[in-house]
Amino acid sequence: MYEVEVKVPADHDEVRERLAELGAEPVNEVTQEDTYYDAPHREFAETDEALRVRRETPADAEEFAELTYKGPLVEAESKTREEIETVVEEGEATGNLLAALGFDPAATVRKERERFLLDGYTVTLDAVDGLGEFVEVETEVEGESEVESAREKAYSVLRDLGLDPDEQIRTSYLGLLLEASEE
Amino acid sequence: MYEVEVKVPADHDEVRERLAELGAEPVNEVTQEDTYYDAPHREFAETDEALRVRRETPADAEEFAELTYKGPLVEAESKTREEIETVVEEGEATGNLLAALGFDPAATVRKERERFLLDGYTVTLDAVDGLGEFVEVETEVEGESEVESAREKAYSVLRDLGLDPDEQIRTSYLGLLLEASEE
Repeated sequence: MYEVEVKVPADHDEVRERLAELGAEPVNEVTQEDTYYDAPHREFAETDEALRVRRETPADAEEFAELTYKGPLVEAESKTREEIETVVEEGEATGNLLAALGFDPAATVRKERERFLLDGYTVTLDAVDGLGEFVEVETEVEGESEVESAREKAYSVLRDLGLDPDEQIRTSYLGLLLEASEE
Repeated sequence: MYEVEVKVPADHDEVRERLAELGAEPVNEVTQEDTYYDAPHREFAETDEALRVRRETPADAEEFAELTYKGPLVEAESKTREEIETVVEEGEATGNLLAALGFDPAATVRKERERFLLDGYTVTLDAVDGLGEFVEVETEVEGESEVESAREKAYSVLRDLGLDPDEQIRTSYLGLLLEASEE
């Protein structure tokens, strides 16, 4: 499974208006707190991998958690990576288990997400603590061969929303936060 | 949380009769397939740790999976360890995620388990592929200070079942299988 995702900075009020005009379907609103872990045996910053525990609190449902591994980029243009993921019942125990194995919590990213469905893509309005407002357009494809056309279509969805694909930011929220903390 | 557990080899038919006489409560019957992983950065055989994905198929419910870390012994007598555990939705993805991080599947233990409750203890009749029949008496306690009295009580439950605590086997099924494969 490959995640194809493009992200631009964007004022949410304007994008929300366009989503309504285009008949996008509201999906949900959630708060996500992502903790990223350092590995004891590899430098993830160098191998371009990530290990994350996500604790998600939906506006209208039970809190849940996910454990996710992200592999190195397979397609740089749309920052496409292999993801391996499972829902876990105990977010806290999962963090403790990783710590016991020598994986240390390195950084936390907290954001409010508002999700819509439009033309088969998930459009997410992200308000990220310490960074501001962004819009992500995202889908998943089965094979690497489908990545490029999925990315072109994502650019087209951005344009429909009045956004400019040239403003795409390829750095993750984690990366942006780390850059901001270095300045 | 500390797991206190004692295990002896035992003929299941005789123990089942004693359990019925003592009014033990049948809990469930499950098939468990445990895969143990080697770490890329530690020799678990030396650090006395273990990392396991358990896929459990109950006789009368949905299959589920657990991810478990077992720390080194804190009390050798009853092989008490710290356990950190979470239910995971995707057993296969969890194994793939561990493999991507460099943890390799090292061994698999498959067994049929029949569980009963007796005097606050879980009594488990294990039929282990390649090893034979065993009975485990097990409970969990909150603090390390409660371990010794819980172990004494477990011995007493074994005696009630007509079994001899002196026959206790402190080697795990995994360890017994590895020993058998070396012979």
